[in-house]
Amino acid sequence: MTMQTSARNAAGIETVLGILRQQFGDRLQTGQAIREQHGHTTTWIATEAPDGVVFPHSTEEVAQIVTACATHQVPVIAFGIGSSLEGHVNAPLGGICIDTSQMDQIVAVHGEDLDAVVQPGVTREALNTHLRDQGLFFPIDPGANASLGGMAATRASGTNAVRYGTMKDNVLALKAVMADGSVIHTAQRVKKTSAGYDLTRLLVGSEGTLGIITEITLRLQGIPEAMRAARCSFPSVDAACQAAMATVQYGIPVARIELLDALSVQAVNAYSKLDLPVEPLLLLEFHGSEASVEEQAEMFGQIAQDVGGSGFATAGSLEERNKLWQARHDLYWAELQLRPGAKGLSTDVCVPVSRLAEIVTATTAKADALNLLAPVAGHVGDGNFHCLVLMDMDDSDELERVREFVSWLSETAIEMEGTCTGEHGIGQGKRAYLRKELGGAVDVMAAVKVALDPQNILNPGKILP
Amino acid sequence: MTMQTSARNAAGIETVLGILRQQFGDRLQTGQAIREQHGHTTTWIATEAPDGVVFPHSTEEVAQIVTACATHQVPVIAFGIGSSLEGHVNAPLGGICIDTSQMDQIVAVHGEDLDAVVQPGVTREALNTHLRDQGLFFPIDPGANASLGGMAATRASGTNAVRYGTMKDNVLALKAVMADGSVIHTAQRVKKTSAGYDLTRLLVGSEGTLGIITEITLRLQGIPEAMRAARCSFPSVDAACQAAMATVQYGIPVARIELLDALSVQAVNAYSKLDLPVEPLLLLEFHGSEASVEEQAEMFGQIAQDVGGSGFATAGSLEERNKLWQARHDLYWAELQLRPGAKGLSTDVCVPVSRLAEIVTATTAKADALNLLAPVAGHVGDGNFHCLVLMDMDDSDELERVREFVSWLSETAIEMEGTCTGEHGIGQGKRAYLRKELGGAVDVMAAVKVALDPQNILNPGKILP
Repeated sequence: MTMQTSARNAAGIETVLGILRQQFGDRLQTGQAIREQHGHTTTWIATEAPDGVVFPHSTEEVAQIVTACATHQVPVIAFGIGSSLEGHVNAPLGGICIDTSQMDQIVAVHGEDLDAVVQPGVTREALNTHLRDQGLFFPIDPGANASLGGMAATRASGTNAVRYGTMKDNVLALKAVMADGSVIHTAQRVKKTSAGYDLTRLLVGSEGTLGIITEITLRLQGIPEAMRAARCSFPSVDAACQAAMATVQYGIPVARIELLDALSVQAVNAYSKLDLPVEPLLLLEFHGSEASVEEQAEMFGQIAQDVGGSGFATAGSLEERNKLWQARHDLYWAELQLRPGAKGLSTDVCVPVSRLAEIVTATTAKADALNLLAPVAGHVGDGNFHCLVLMDMDDSDELERVREFVSWLSETAIEMEGTCTGEHGIGQGKRAYLRKELGGAVDVMAAVKVALDPQNILNPGKILP
Repeated sequence: MTMQTSARNAAGIETVLGILRQQFGDRLQTGQAIREQHGHTTTWIATEAPDGVVFPHSTEEVAQIVTACATHQVPVIAFGIGSSLEGHVNAPLGGICIDTSQMDQIVAVHGEDLDAVVQPGVTREALNTHLRDQGLFFPIDPGANASLGGMAATRASGTNAVRYGTMKDNVLALKAVMADGSVIHTAQRVKKTSAGYDLTRLLVGSEGTLGIITEITLRLQGIPEAMRAARCSFPSVDAACQAAMATVQYGIPVARIELLDALSVQAVNAYSKLDLPVEPLLLLEFHGSEASVEEQAEMFGQIAQDVGGSGFATAGSLEERNKLWQARHDLYWAELQLRPGAKGLSTDVCVPVSRLAEIVTATTAKADALNLLAPVAGHVGDGNFHCLVLMDMDDSDELERVREFVSWLSETAIEMEGTCTGEHGIGQGKRAYLRKELGGAVDVMAAVKVALDPQNILNPGKILP
């Protein structure tokens, strides 16, 4: 089964724009700049702008918008802050973009239950700022200051996932507007439930194609008594991966364990004025009691030494920690500076941890063979890594080689029992790989899509091939 | 939308029995005793036996069975070891029971990746016995030595869930036979993925109504360096719950934290020849390094003291630990002995932790008011508790009061933002509460069911009202 991408419904779109203009006034925007900004992508996929951008304030308003679009068979694309990477917010058939940035209320924080209820436009940094005084935090950190609605929709994760899981593990319940404009809540505000099908996790990662998320109940964590950061250099990517695997196997509850390859370290040294040894580096963070983080760091140091690690250093104070992690936080910008003016394409394959060293090494060799500059950084506790391909968008020959590289990387990961996307999602960019990875399961996904969105109005042209 | 339960298809069933007899010989059983044993339920729900029980060995054989049943519109009910509690394996329209007990192969253990691939008939104890020499374990422990297929199908959890999560968090991927006989794999063997809809978690907890699970990829843990058990008595359920909440809030990574009310302690004392104070009791287990479990126990001891706890004691050796946890493991049998000859009905509501003391106290009062004997034990770190209602199955007046009690308990939990089922599932027994709890989300579930099983042959009469 293949989702039919039907033609652009110009008449329906005009009608809906009229309806929304009447209801939302200035909260409907149709200027070219704002439309293009809402169809932009952060990589190389061409912009496909929606016909209008509307800024609702409530679930009820989202339901009204979707109902109008359903009545007139007009596409609806949900938008957070636009930090997704695979063309998720593009509007290939036009339609209405629902910008959730004004749905930015933290509805409730339940400290005793370690949960919070938020609107989808709340960003993770805004939530954490709000929570800090209560000694709580929300751990998922994809790098960008993404909206929590967008993070749920793409099943985001990031540097903390090795300890705290991904969005699928940290969303307890959702309120969502379905394709017919009806509003559902997927679960009660509890830590666990066996009540029927897991609609929460069906919507998490569905990239706005099954429903529009309008409220999220999130699992929170207490801010740990102590945090300690550490770094260690390794003679090879393989040695660094061995250390990461052993750390997880020994049950050290590491909060973050990040790999930078030598090229990434070189970029960081130049950008952040550091003098780290230009060889593979692991950056770590430990959370727990004072005694526990001390012990964790010590155990890691021993493991690292056993596989040839050098320059092991820890940092306990906030200032020291920030300095150590600054290198990681600035990585994207640092890597871009390896080739000023270039555009970066961030891949995100994920493999069984035991295959990580092999695929990272092969990836670097492949990039070299194709004469591409592609520094690597990875969430090595999860087997997930990013390769930032730096490319000249005006060089068609180079873009062809980038296409070959990305295709090779996705297929190689799939052959190693891995996935083409560990955390960025399928969007438009990875649709070609979904069936290679999951075969007939894609037909089951398509059947679910047809059942829940028979008119294919919710973010059409995404995920399903 | 309501799932139509159609009439019994006697002709189709006869045809399928003929087909299966030819293919499976003695591996198809139709004797009354074995059929009734496969339609039994462990509670009060009346037995509804299937027409035949077949024992496949492989995914391919399951696919052949389902294809035959699909062709002739005959119900298919998957069966693990029959320890489910809500009539999940009953066959209200007859049909074919697929007993997975001979699909008991551990297909692969990947120690470096901390995962294992198993057939659905492998029990959790068999898996853990197999893993022990490799220093690994699978943490989910629902009490019974359940099959891992059954545990996945009901989204089981149990005593370790506060630390390690439920089946939804520990199943990485599934192989499943869908209603048309096709075979899918839901995900690759990776720690995380954003590749399309989360079919893994759509099938986990679907109770055999969307597909038959034939292979499971499970997340494993390294056996902790040290484990320490502890117990502490409290003047009230409220004080015990306060201690449990504070333990989780302070980020103490407790592996188990179990409440027994005074009546349960009384039962345990009598059954296990102990002399625990007859007041609410918390039993705990800590996992980690030697230093860490020591510190965790100490921190808990301080918390317990602050809310009036007494008799705090820890146990480090395996023997001591086993003795302390024996009370919990024997609880079901001990509670039954409070009223010899009675049948036990185990409830499993779950509420936000902050409401737990309130609902446990109200539950005990309600049982008293209805003159029912109903000891309470709970996974208090998750807000989930069991009430074992001890009843005389020949006393129709008492059964009526039990019905009132169960109904009151489910509705009270739902009013407190909780769920009617934290871990047992909906099955037949809780269908009446699903819409009260989730409203229109039930229509979405029904739409998914119709899309994936249009003939309603997979475990009909379960979950959906």
